[in-house]
Amino acid sequence: MGSAGDMVDITRDNFEDMFPLVEEALKDCNFFSLDCEMTGLFVDGARDDYLDEMCDRYAKLRESSQSYIINQFGLSCFKLISGPSTDVSGFEAKTFNFYIFPEPLTDNAQARKFLSDSGSLSFLAHQKFDFNKWIYKGIPFMPTHECHRRRRELTRYYTGELRTNSINPTKPEDQEFVRLLIEQVQRWLSGAEPSLVLFDMNSYRRLLAYQELEKPQFGKDDYPGFFVKKIDVGNGYSQLQLIRGTQEEVIKMQQEDVQQRMHDLDKAIGFTRVIEAMKACRRPAVGHNCMFDIAYVLAACVDPKLPPSWPEYKQLVEEWFPGGIFDTKLIARQVPEIFKRGTSLGEVFKGVTEDDEVRSKMDALFAKCHVDGQPQLSSPHVRHAPGFEKYALVEAGGAAHEAGYDSFMTGTVFAHLIHIIRAKDFASRAAIMMPEAVDQALVGGGPLLPAQLADLDLNSHSDSARLAGGDSSLIDAEVLLQPVNRFKNCLNIMRTDMPYAAVCGLDPPLSRPNVFHVSGLPSGGTRADEIITLFQAEGLGRPRVTLSAGKAYGPPSTGALVEVDAELASDVLHKLMGVPKPVEEGKEWNVAPIQASAEGQGSRGSSLRVIPWEQWSKERVAAVATATQQQEELRPSKRSRIESSKGTPITDQLAAAGAAAGVELIEKLQGERRSAEVRAQQKSGGCLVM
Amino acid sequence: MGSAGDMVDITRDNFEDMFPLVEEALKDCNFFSLDCEMTGLFVDGARDDYLDEMCDRYAKLRESSQSYIINQFGLSCFKLISGPSTDVSGFEAKTFNFYIFPEPLTDNAQARKFLSDSGSLSFLAHQKFDFNKWIYKGIPFMPTHECHRRRRELTRYYTGELRTNSINPTKPEDQEFVRLLIEQVQRWLSGAEPSLVLFDMNSYRRLLAYQELEKPQFGKDDYPGFFVKKIDVGNGYSQLQLIRGTQEEVIKMQQEDVQQRMHDLDKAIGFTRVIEAMKACRRPAVGHNCMFDIAYVLAACVDPKLPPSWPEYKQLVEEWFPGGIFDTKLIARQVPEIFKRGTSLGEVFKGVTEDDEVRSKMDALFAKCHVDGQPQLSSPHVRHAPGFEKYALVEAGGAAHEAGYDSFMTGTVFAHLIHIIRAKDFASRAAIMMPEAVDQALVGGGPLLPAQLADLDLNSHSDSARLAGGDSSLIDAEVLLQPVNRFKNCLNIMRTDMPYAAVCGLDPPLSRPNVFHVSGLPSGGTRADEIITLFQAEGLGRPRVTLSAGKAYGPPSTGALVEVDAELASDVLHKLMGVPKPVEEGKEWNVAPIQASAEGQGSRGSSLRVIPWEQWSKERVAAVATATQQQEELRPSKRSRIESSKGTPITDQLAAAGAAAGVELIEKLQGERRSAEVRAQQKSGGCLVM
Repeated sequence: MGSAGDMVDITRDNFEDMFPLVEEALKDCNFFSLDCEMTGLFVDGARDDYLDEMCDRYAKLRESSQSYIINQFGLSCFKLISGPSTDVSGFEAKTFNFYIFPEPLTDNAQARKFLSDSGSLSFLAHQKFDFNKWIYKGIPFMPTHECHRRRRELTRYYTGELRTNSINPTKPEDQEFVRLLIEQVQRWLSGAEPSLVLFDMNSYRRLLAYQELEKPQFGKDDYPGFFVKKIDVGNGYSQLQLIRGTQEEVIKMQQEDVQQRMHDLDKAIGFTRVIEAMKACRRPAVGHNCMFDIAYVLAACVDPKLPPSWPEYKQLVEEWFPGGIFDTKLIARQVPEIFKRGTSLGEVFKGVTEDDEVRSKMDALFAKCHVDGQPQLSSPHVRHAPGFEKYALVEAGGAAHEAGYDSFMTGTVFAHLIHIIRAKDFASRAAIMMPEAVDQALVGGGPLLPAQLADLDLNSHSDSARLAGGDSSLIDAEVLLQPVNRFKNCLNIMRTDMPYAAVCGLDPPLSRPNVFHVSGLPSGGTRADEIITLFQAEGLGRPRVTLSAGKAYGPPSTGALVEVDAELASDVLHKLMGVPKPVEEGKEWNVAPIQASAEGQGSRGSSLRVIPWEQWSKERVAAVATATQQQEELRPSKRSRIESSKGTPITDQLAAAGAAAGVELIEKLQGERRSAEVRAQQKSGGCLVM
Repeated sequence: MGSAGDMVDITRDNFEDMFPLVEEALKDCNFFSLDCEMTGLFVDGARDDYLDEMCDRYAKLRESSQSYIINQFGLSCFKLISGPSTDVSGFEAKTFNFYIFPEPLTDNAQARKFLSDSGSLSFLAHQKFDFNKWIYKGIPFMPTHECHRRRRELTRYYTGELRTNSINPTKPEDQEFVRLLIEQVQRWLSGAEPSLVLFDMNSYRRLLAYQELEKPQFGKDDYPGFFVKKIDVGNGYSQLQLIRGTQEEVIKMQQEDVQQRMHDLDKAIGFTRVIEAMKACRRPAVGHNCMFDIAYVLAACVDPKLPPSWPEYKQLVEEWFPGGIFDTKLIARQVPEIFKRGTSLGEVFKGVTEDDEVRSKMDALFAKCHVDGQPQLSSPHVRHAPGFEKYALVEAGGAAHEAGYDSFMTGTVFAHLIHIIRAKDFASRAAIMMPEAVDQALVGGGPLLPAQLADLDLNSHSDSARLAGGDSSLIDAEVLLQPVNRFKNCLNIMRTDMPYAAVCGLDPPLSRPNVFHVSGLPSGGTRADEIITLFQAEGLGRPRVTLSAGKAYGPPSTGALVEVDAELASDVLHKLMGVPKPVEEGKEWNVAPIQASAEGQGSRGSSLRVIPWEQWSKERVAAVATATQQQEELRPSKRSRIESSKGTPITDQLAAAGAAAGVELIEKLQGERRSAEVRAQQKSGGCLVM
């Protein structure tokens, strides 16, 4: 890679110089693609379960995003270009590869602690990630709410805002404080000591002190005769120091102080400015399988504690990605006939750029799109903008998992997918340029299914000529993105039967007619294979079991979700309803004698409880709502209630304790319970016999 | 640094080749020094408090050691050498610098998750630490209990141990399992399929299966006709696969399998072999301020969860460091007249090796040690052994904070300190070579205080001639180390009034006559400055306040430890006893009207409780003992008790929950409470007025 190419690598050293280029590229682009490398994905005991709902997935995503950090961020800004008159049009990409590290601030701000998964770091090492560049040269970042707080603080101290919002102390002790302060300062001013350190005070009194020190009450007409310097003394405490000086000297000290603090703050905000620029440009964002990327970026640059609930998180995503988000993995999965080798980023990119089989299928699809014998579509050309050639000579996939290159690959794939989806719609006689139909489809909250597309009538093609390469001057980005608009804000999720995650609007409806929730299981010794045996014994096939379902979200549960073959679903309830719970003898559930099955018949109290998934899911939502309400009622100010809440079941007590110590506690508790149960399960060598 | 010097850097690539040299150097040395670089020191909210006791310090140390990891380990093996006849004797050092990284195993073992403090990584970057070498090339490690488990497992599968310890299934369902298994295998053997994957089974049944599959019951005389392969299928589950083969083929498959697994295991044990060699050599270990180094090494290589209590931890240290541990910082602090610039490693090393002022003081001290006019001591020479010259050309302190160099500096400092202490003892007429006196001093559990030393009579110096450079052939390492023997297993601790941490034997007695515990404080809004105001108002000076004391260990407490000036200690109890607790109005303790002081007089219920530190410390130990007993009673097997324990106070319920979910929970809870309280304290802008 040449030295010219190195300009796309952005570190602490060149960030200030490069940022205007990043901002300009974002303003200029039609869409931008992004990719993150991270120090890890899953915290211990929080693997994704197949039968999770979105709230479960989000709870795990949230925990991951506040534990691990991003170490590299790739941004590729794609701009539509008109080729030479005989050529087809295409895109020009400006790609930036940011190294990011939470360098501690020079002032007393605490250093960030973050988790790493040794597997993830080894994976990055395998991809030749430069850890030295990351830690030595990574750009710092700061959550926006912290930026705002610090900016406000700077403003408050130096713009005289305090004089307009003056405080009037009413309590006698505060009035006494002010009296003593003025006395102390006057005594000092009448002496010769060059500076005075004021006694310790809390933040309210510091505000009072600032106000008093700015008043023209110390013998000078329009300046107090000294400069007030705030000194950080560590551990979040600070002292005020007064430095004697002429009006000129005081003004100079003030200016220098403001400049220094503004400069330090700008430097510390660092990478967060990129996210602010991404937000400000209002262009569509594109990622490949980007649920984690989006969450990690928001946790790093907006708030390390993402919102507690999935609906609140959606609002945050909508606020920070006003142009919407497209997920190329989700879109590529809609055309399995083209991407037969799977939809990993490397595979899809290689497919659209150099694989003969994929390209000939694409060409065949494009060839079907002709109006009045004129071809309407072809593969878009993508080129690196001048000065951004770092990746130009890299063979397809060669620099995979460098975030910058991954973001470039993602954008390139997106450019092709737009045409592929358009061509497929055209070929299947779907409506091209029929906004009503698209809108109608979007009411459902998600992508059109192929069947729905087929139902749409072929409509006017008046706009389609504008899309062809023949007359590139007519090309319009809005129109170009329209075929994929139905995938906007639909992100791919792995290991699930949920079609996608809607980061905007309603979640897609979820139907699980062949999933059941089994409860009444022993609390600490159930293994998936025991439940499998139970179902097999009743002739219900070999089901898929998710033991930990519902643990990440809502109250802890000792039940399991069980998925049976579709044709057996109707048998489950009548076969298992009333099946007795095996006698629990200590923890050895497996030693329950076989005849217990017969004995327990009809005794509801000792039975397993088997209900359809839909019912369980509703009960769970209601339970969480109740728990949330209880937490609301048990805010810290009402803590005394907790201490006297004897006689309450332990789960409620724990919920109360959670409310007192912050919402994290209840999550921690559940996490601990979960891992304790997992340990218990691993230790248990039993086997369920009915 | 030359290429010859590079041989002391040990990575994944040369570990196997270098390990015999490490082992030999340890066996050959008179003492070894060690140093670690780590990813962090303190977890959030667990800073050391000045008034901590050892149990508090250990609780925090333990939490740190299971969160952060070592990334570099320095080992320097010092061997006494005889110089040329006219020269003084000295040491030769073999120094090794290991890069360590928890590379995940190739089999399904989970990747290690570890915490990093961005401040610690930035600090290492500042010292030019090579993070790429760490992650790309770091030697893996494995806790010894895990090594033993895996070694046992390998042995069990391949030595036929199972045949001697045969299991006899008594339960009908297990007997049925065996019957079905034999049937299944026989059916397969009578067919032609080359292999058979057995159905899922739990670990007990897997043992049964192994036993059955090894029996000569499948038609062949002395081998079953197949090889049994255990296949890891992820998530800790495994399946058994039978592969058909002739006797020769089966034996070959077995041998290859054992070899591969043994090789993988040896590779994965990695750095842990160094710790085992350190233990086996039984030589004294030396570190500089090495409390964290020792704990981190034990957590990495012995057990990631260090023992729950400080006394149990001591046993572990004694087991793994049978030669004892010396802390050069603690020893250097005994001679402040020589190390005036402080006792940081760099400062002390520079002092003894090149600083003119320190060296002339040392020489003056040594000059006083003469017997019959013959000088007895001089500065020891330290040289790098041939082939270990990496650090030879580095100017003093230049490679500081590379673990290898730090360990070399530590050993060099130790060599000098031995002579300094001996000379000082001699000079202050202390006993040299008087084992009785030293033993007597050690009964107290720690170093002699200067006053004690002065009390000792100058005794026979018959051995001292053996120590002089004049006749180096007489030098004896045991004798040489004797002057510092009273510092053995006494480690330095920072920010404390405790003299040292005794990692062997009794803790030094702790007396805090001017420290008091204040309880009855409002639960969520007390700030240190409020307590200061309270004491100041009573004319008790400006005390030192530790709010979080007693939180890391034992039940949560809302009290504070307060230290007053020694001359005011006798006033505290009578001045504060009966002082009313300010009226609590919501959380706003600070708005309590001043007259409340008068109103509340005599009402014991609303008073603050102030007791001497000694009493509080004893009450605390008793409370912890009770809680531990309760946890014992509430083991998981007795969990049903917990569910029905309504009416119990919440702390007991939480303790019970802790017992159920493992001891960690209660610690987490306390941690959460602590941080919630810290947050609450930070938010509270009030000020206590009495």
